[in-house]
Amino acid sequence: MRIGELSKATDVPVPTIKYYLREGLLPAGELSSPNQASYDAVHVRRLRLIRALTELAQVPVAQVKEILESLDSDDIPLHEQIGRAHRALTPTRRLTTTPEARATAESQVAALITRRGWTIEPEAPALATLIDTIAAMETLGQPHLSSYLDAYAEAVEHFTQLDIEAVTTRPTRDQLAESVVIGTILGETLIASLRLLAQESISAQRWKNR
Amino acid sequence: MRIGELSKATDVPVPTIKYYLREGLLPAGELSSPNQASYDAVHVRRLRLIRALTELAQVPVAQVKEILESLDSDDIPLHEQIGRAHRALTPTRRLTTTPEARATAESQVAALITRRGWTIEPEAPALATLIDTIAAMETLGQPHLSSYLDAYAEAVEHFTQLDIEAVTTRPTRDQLAESVVIGTILGETLIASLRLLAQESISAQRWKNR
Repeated sequence: MRIGELSKATDVPVPTIKYYLREGLLPAGELSSPNQASYDAVHVRRLRLIRALTELAQVPVAQVKEILESLDSDDIPLHEQIGRAHRALTPTRRLTTTPEARATAESQVAALITRRGWTIEPEAPALATLIDTIAAMETLGQPHLSSYLDAYAEAVEHFTQLDIEAVTTRPTRDQLAESVVIGTILGETLIASLRLLAQESISAQRWKNR
Repeated sequence: MRIGELSKATDVPVPTIKYYLREGLLPAGELSSPNQASYDAVHVRRLRLIRALTELAQVPVAQVKEILESLDSDDIPLHEQIGRAHRALTPTRRLTTTPEARATAESQVAALITRRGWTIEPEAPALATLIDTIAAMETLGQPHLSSYLDAYAEAVEHFTQLDIEAVTTRPTRDQLAESVVIGTILGETLIASLRLLAQESISAQRWKNR
């Protein structure tokens, strides 16, 4: 198909497609004449992935490029690919907390990881986010929330088994890696919206007249 | 304390504090002289909540004001307060999907809500987000992910019981409402970062050499 048809199929404007081509996010089409290229299903699929990353997960274009390059490389072990995608997807929102609250949170998280038997690299960005979040709970006068840490971690392990189950059905390594990236992004929105709905339902039953 | 001390205690710059005072997000201090006001622990606490909302949850200032007004009002039932906070906290990210994918997602979600016995108002913003997310999974060639919907919903119900348990320990209605708002925001980051860590750990064990 031509670039105009690719634009229609994916609902991405032609100038945006040209920008992605220039930035190397989208592989070049096959030249059908000196100034006309032809695109196929691979481009449609890749464009949708780019949009999911930029629009849903709000990953900056430079990092999208990194994720796609690592998806396209056969030399990078799958676990390392997943790590790169995670690094790009981890929110970097931070809240200034007191040094005391941070120190307490750090030891709480270290103890949690030991109790769960998790294998975590010390530079995992989600580790910093978790520590910040627990320190923020303390700083915001909600230290009771962190006493549920083990219960949350246990429920999350249950999710993660589902995450892994859902992606391992993919037949090829490429599809598995793509599925992990999409599952990580969309899974987060899925869980967050299910949680708000479940909260709404329980709150309606429990606090309707309070 | 004076405004400079309030700034030090909360790590919020004085001009930002003045902006919040002008916008009515922060109650005025008590005038100790014609041009000097004094602030207390209530202001410290409120400033931290404002920062959690703007920085961690990235809620726009106008909506922060709405959440705070509803927290401060005794006339609004607790369930309605929670609903308002949810509306402000629901991400509005969207991904263009095909009308067919959206129609399928809509009936999947309706069936899910019936199966779970949830009480959900049709205009709940999380409902639109959930439908969009499932439609995006289909559009991105990952329809297998939505077959885990019931399993995810069940795990989420488990979380939500924890969410509710964690906040109902709060002694007053005010504190309960504040705790719900903070728990909703920080809980989302907590769950997301725990999930990335659990995924990393499982992926390290499972796909190290693939």
